[in-house]
Amino acid sequence: MQRVSFRDMNCSVAQALEVVGEWWSLLVVRDALLGVTRFDDFHRRLGISRNVLNDRLGRLVAEGVLEKVVYQHHPPRYDYVLTEKGRDLWEVLDAMRRWGDRWAAPPAGPPMELVHRRCGHRTTPTLHCGECGEVLRHGDVRLVHGPGADDRSPQLRDSPVGSGAEGRR
Amino acid sequence: MQRVSFRDMNCSVAQALEVVGEWWSLLVVRDALLGVTRFDDFHRRLGISRNVLNDRLGRLVAEGVLEKVVYQHHPPRYDYVLTEKGRDLWEVLDAMRRWGDRWAAPPAGPPMELVHRRCGHRTTPTLHCGECGEVLRHGDVRLVHGPGADDRSPQLRDSPVGSGAEGRR
Repeated sequence: MQRVSFRDMNCSVAQALEVVGEWWSLLVVRDALLGVTRFDDFHRRLGISRNVLNDRLGRLVAEGVLEKVVYQHHPPRYDYVLTEKGRDLWEVLDAMRRWGDRWAAPPAGPPMELVHRRCGHRTTPTLHCGECGEVLRHGDVRLVHGPGADDRSPQLRDSPVGSGAEGRR
Repeated sequence: MQRVSFRDMNCSVAQALEVVGEWWSLLVVRDALLGVTRFDDFHRRLGISRNVLNDRLGRLVAEGVLEKVVYQHHPPRYDYVLTEKGRDLWEVLDAMRRWGDRWAAPPAGPPMELVHRRCGHRTTPTLHCGECGEVLRHGDVRLVHGPGADDRSPQLRDSPVGSGAEGRR
């Protein structure tokens, strides 16, 4: 597949993708999280070919990230709706958004911001340890092999994230 | 570029990529976060062609995610070391890891786990509101346009994440 540039989109997620890979599928999920459900709307917003979009949507449906919901029977027409598995990608998209904001935002500031419905503030989510509650930063954590590790898992090396010191359980 | 399957790697990050896109670059960053710095080590661990790896490393250097540090002068040999911008991708990788753990982990459990160095526990990071400190889940937040928004930014729609109700500042 030919590489497409996301550079000209004013979207931090797209900026992150410009740096780290081709990823129409995640932009489809991004738009689905923004409430888009119709083929023609994805097509108009993403500006990709109908073939590529059709391929990506079909794959996301096959993977259980999106599901097709009939909204018209004759002829059949579908909404593409995120499943729980799909909605759960919001943390990935949001991590990309935050990274893009820090490293590729326009001079005026981030193009998109998150509002916490309950407290009402524009907010930047922070990662905390699920055990002690402290804020987690790179260097505060290391990776170890979990119960599902096998010889196809990434090998561990000494590193800021990742240390083989503990080995496997 | 031809699509490659990550399915057979026992790594939740790779599982997430299998679903949502081609992304060798992020796997290079994953391994760099695990302490890999040498071309041959990346090559051996990722199992991609030297050409593709060379291309991805070169691009990550050009984007300021990795930097080349000479470790041998005659002939010149380099370590590929993450910059601050590169290390900062750990939150993206970790969000992918958590998603892959939830939706594509082997029956035995996650292949990799995170240990919080300070408290010493194996932990699952949680996202919290940077303003009020509450745990954030999908549906607790909505996207609004930020100060850097313009007509190339994603349009907002009513949705669990994303609502145009506030418009721009």
